[in-house]
Amino acid sequence: MNEVIKDLFTQVKEVQPLIHHITNTVTINDCANVTLAIGGSPVMATSVEEVADMAQLAQALVINFGTIDDAMYEAMMLAGQAANKKGIPIVFDPVGVGATPFRTERAKDYLNTVNVSVVRGNASEVFALIGGNAHTRGVDAGDISISSRELALEAARKLNAIAVISGKIDYISNGTDVIGIDNGDLLLTKITGTGCTTASLIAAFAGVSTDWFAAAVAGMSTMSIAGELAKKQLKKDEGIGTYRIKLLDQIFLMDGNTWEEGVRFA
Amino acid sequence: MNEVIKDLFTQVKEVQPLIHHITNTVTINDCANVTLAIGGSPVMATSVEEVADMAQLAQALVINFGTIDDAMYEAMMLAGQAANKKGIPIVFDPVGVGATPFRTERAKDYLNTVNVSVVRGNASEVFALIGGNAHTRGVDAGDISISSRELALEAARKLNAIAVISGKIDYISNGTDVIGIDNGDLLLTKITGTGCTTASLIAAFAGVSTDWFAAAVAGMSTMSIAGELAKKQLKKDEGIGTYRIKLLDQIFLMDGNTWEEGVRFA
Amino acid sequence: MNEVIKDLFTQVKEVQPLIHHITNTVTINDCANVTLAIGGSPVMATSVEEVADMAQLAQALVINFGTIDDAMYEAMMLAGQAANKKGIPIVFDPVGVGATPFRTERAKDYLNTVNVSVVRGNASEVFALIGGNAHTRGVDAGDISISSRELALEAARKLNAIAVISGKIDYISNGTDVIGIDNGDLLLTKITGTGCTTASLIAAFAGVSTDWFAAAVAGMSTMSIAGELAKKQLKKDEGIGTYRIKLLDQIFLMDGNTWEEGVRFA
Repeated sequence: MNEVIKDLFTQVKEVQPLIHHITNTVTINDCANVTLAIGGSPVMATSVEEVADMAQLAQALVINFGTIDDAMYEAMMLAGQAANKKGIPIVFDPVGVGATPFRTERAKDYLNTVNVSVVRGNASEVFALIGGNAHTRGVDAGDISISSRELALEAARKLNAIAVISGKIDYISNGTDVIGIDNGDLLLTKITGTGCTTASLIAAFAGVSTDWFAAAVAGMSTMSIAGELAKKQLKKDEGIGTYRIKLLDQIFLMDGNTWEEGVRFA
Repeated sequence: MNEVIKDLFTQVKEVQPLIHHITNTVTINDCANVTLAIGGSPVMATSVEEVADMAQLAQALVINFGTIDDAMYEAMMLAGQAANKKGIPIVFDPVGVGATPFRTERAKDYLNTVNVSVVRGNASEVFALIGGNAHTRGVDAGDISISSRELALEAARKLNAIAVISGKIDYISNGTDVIGIDNGDLLLTKITGTGCTTASLIAAFAGVSTDWFAAAVAGMSTMSIAGELAKKQLKKDEGIGTYRIKLLDQIFLMDGNTWEEGVRFA
Repeated sequence: MNEVIKDLFTQVKEVQPLIHHITNTVTINDCANVTLAIGGSPVMATSVEEVADMAQLAQALVINFGTIDDAMYEAMMLAGQAANKKGIPIVFDPVGVGATPFRTERAKDYLNTVNVSVVRGNASEVFALIGGNAHTRGVDAGDISISSRELALEAARKLNAIAVISGKIDYISNGTDVIGIDNGDLLLTKITGTGCTTASLIAAFAGVSTDWFAAAVAGMSTMSIAGELAKKQLKKDEGIGTYRIKLLDQIFLMDGNTWEEGVRFA
């Protein structure tokens, strides 16, 4: 898979795929800049009157539930259906699913109507997404009886999509194979948006490839490796402000060679 | 109060309180990162369909009027009532109140319906909030006949809440006592979001304490001290871009000892 | 024109004009900070219930189509009409016009109802705005038969406004004269928001002047010069994360003298 992924870094910079996001207002700027950093071109249209047209122009679609409301959900539906019709990949980020019934129900409803290509979340979000038992066992990652590795596999099968579970070790599964990524840094959990922007990275790679499993591995590992490299550059009198900036720098500077040197499969 | 506040820094990092924000789209990302920097966990749900559920999960609620419209206002009402029912603190930031009748009326309406724990604003905003004479005297801080110290005291009494007035010297009052903070830097007024994120800091501290007066002093002074420390690190060829980053760094790096060394009561 | 523009830098810092933005959620924070960096005061009210009141308080209005929907469009109409009534300049940024019929139609509709003072966009956006032939020739800048210089002139005449076309060389026209700016750096296209924030700069200068042509030249060239200076400071192991920060620094640090030293007319 290494050669395939290394090639994705070249492809994304050549093609500059248009990545349509319907995403939350918290990290929308981060998503745009991370898409640009890896070589893609972001567009963030959200009006129900144009999302289907915009999805038609795009090479991939990101759907993020961070700050959904009814209007945004309707736009996500229209864009998702247009993306399915065109055959472009959809990366779905179920932010906060499991926390409120509204999110959990809407997320399940969405997956029943739209075929998503990649689902990316933390363990508790994806667990809530696939299981009726999420509520009884609790949605906090610590309470989940299943390992992240098994969860990735099961989620991929149940959702008929590539599943990406971020955590200390990240797991990516296509329902048959599971790949673990042993990169990253704890500071990635201390800034907002590293999950959301991982979805942008996956979408950028998926937008130039038909191998969405490889694209998911590439996107997830790019974030974790960049998080590690950014930490190495951090001085003692610096904190998460500087870390956020260096993280974006490292994503921008990463190419196939840096990636291969940095990645540690688990 | 010093020992109480020093302890708050430890508590917030241990408990990692969930701080629910319904806030403006301008500085929502800054609020999330500042909440993380001090040790809290931000959530920014705004849909009327879930805000009450989310407030139930939270340890504190931030209500910020920066970019309100009718839908957001309705969500603020629902979240505020849920927060009151649960008994968690609400930090209210009346951004721009006094500038348009819409804001002023909605703010007064909000305070009539929801019990807020802390009100944080600049002098003109809080003055407009408590006085019918705000319009006649003008809403600009310079035109206000009352001193910020007196304003803090009067606002705390009239609003039955902790009042925090930011300015050259910041004043915090519980209606009986007034504490002044003589920290800060002019550059804090040259970047957006230092007011909004001060509310996030206060909420994070209030979320792990029942002493909301101490929490308000802790949050306000953390911002002002961090603003001072960030300025000291700024080089001649750097400006507000770098300043914003270093400010977030300093909030992240601050603990009870740094705070105690830095704070200057007035 | 040099002396006029140098004076604008002094004026904007003295007057601190209030710049009302109705803009997209992606770069709204960047717009606020860039407005502050040049010396203005940003306000971002978007509710239909108050935008007219807020525009009455402002010295200039920025209308940006990045993430428009029906509610935002209605607010833009009300604010635009209030701004026209008061006689303050409106800077219009037709983001993505030409990409979907929704945007193109709304943009034309807007220009038929509101008198805008400055239109700022890239070549394809402005071309779509003035021509029925934009769709047949495609909206990508490369497909446009007309040069950016000619486009600026023609757009200024057809739209009865100052036209600003950003590109490798930026062109600004009042319908009679055309001024080219040969500054900038390719990295300005690799971060989000440099177009949006150029509109903020133009509005800040236009808010303290009646010479909106000079204000447009000042705003556009400030961004391009700052982009050049920021690039010079960038080290090998830094990327667009650091670049964004240094760009904001350079805008903050720029004055009439730095501007005059840096500007290259084409």
